[in-house]
Amino acid sequence: MGRWQPDARGRLQLAALELYGEQGFEQTTVADIAERAGVTERTFFRHFADKREVLFDGASELERRAVEAILVAPPSCPPVEAVGAGMAAAAAPLDEVRDYSRLRAAAIAGHASLQERELLKLAALTAAATAALHERGVPEPAATLAAEVGVAAFKVGFGWWIADDATDTLTACIRSALDQLRALTSQPATRAAADR
Amino acid sequence: MGRWQPDARGRLQLAALELYGEQGFEQTTVADIAERAGVTERTFFRHFADKREVLFDGASELERRAVEAILVAPPSCPPVEAVGAGMAAAAAPLDEVRDYSRLRAAAIAGHASLQERELLKLAALTAAATAALHERGVPEPAATLAAEVGVAAFKVGFGWWIADDATDTLTACIRSALDQLRALTSQPATRAAADR
Repeated sequence: MGRWQPDARGRLQLAALELYGEQGFEQTTVADIAERAGVTERTFFRHFADKREVLFDGASELERRAVEAILVAPPSCPPVEAVGAGMAAAAAPLDEVRDYSRLRAAAIAGHASLQERELLKLAALTAAATAALHERGVPEPAATLAAEVGVAAFKVGFGWWIADDATDTLTACIRSALDQLRALTSQPATRAAADR
Repeated sequence: MGRWQPDARGRLQLAALELYGEQGFEQTTVADIAERAGVTERTFFRHFADKREVLFDGASELERRAVEAILVAPPSCPPVEAVGAGMAAAAAPLDEVRDYSRLRAAAIAGHASLQERELLKLAALTAAATAALHERGVPEPAATLAAEVGVAAFKVGFGWWIADDATDTLTACIRSALDQLRALTSQPATRAAADR
């Protein structure tokens, strides 16, 4: 194989996912991944800090898209709507890579340390969305609560989108999750009963 | 110091928190913690698997209380209300230990691997609340969405409760977060604008 690798990064990601699925995350070494991708270990480390980070490469780009969409939502847009628009914008490019996203989710579900990293990235997304709402002039606690709601809709919608029989786009799944969350929280409270 | 230690567990937890605050989590060894608590390392390992787990000792008990309260909520109680009752019940005993909870939160905030563990415990709480709602006959996606909303209210209310100037109980903070989340999600949608 020649030394010129036009898409070493993408091949490293795919090779890592395949190997995590075949032999498990713990059992897979950077050397294994590099070999499968046809590159050197040194090339691996030019692209990724460690074998965990291969899976979380897109997080900062996703966060950047979400923040941008929250900031450009019309001034009249209520906070939950603005976050919803942010999550939809963040999700849009993922619709191109559903199969990859399924493999990735399966790899993460199989390993606690990967789940932890995924949750930390989602917490960072929540914090970034909160900060973007602050920039829009949304006060506390509305900004934090709206960001939590939006990221919850993202998480739940993402789960639907990677299901075996799913056909809707990720954006549609997130929209639907947010709409159903709204319907659910608008059910009348029966506080006395719940406090029993 | 005698060999009989009536509250070795509690002293180990407090010693760990003090040391994490004073010298950082990474720099603190199990030997340091045991010495500060006046016990042997062996005693430490009788109580905790590692120095991370010292901080997450109460998670399964909190989860158990939440699940129990969700299951005993009146049949007429809507899903979000049932989860709210669960979070309030889970939170109640923490009101006795606000100072400890503040130290703990500060220690966790200072270290990514501790934040990750905390997020994983909250994800487990969400999953347990979802399962309890299923047991109540709540279908999907209502169960997952209601659990996400309830745990979001728990997280946000917890943040208020450990603030320097906070005086409300944790239960009241969670209730208030849930009420404000409801108000926020019931703001009329302006979908066309948000989709711009």
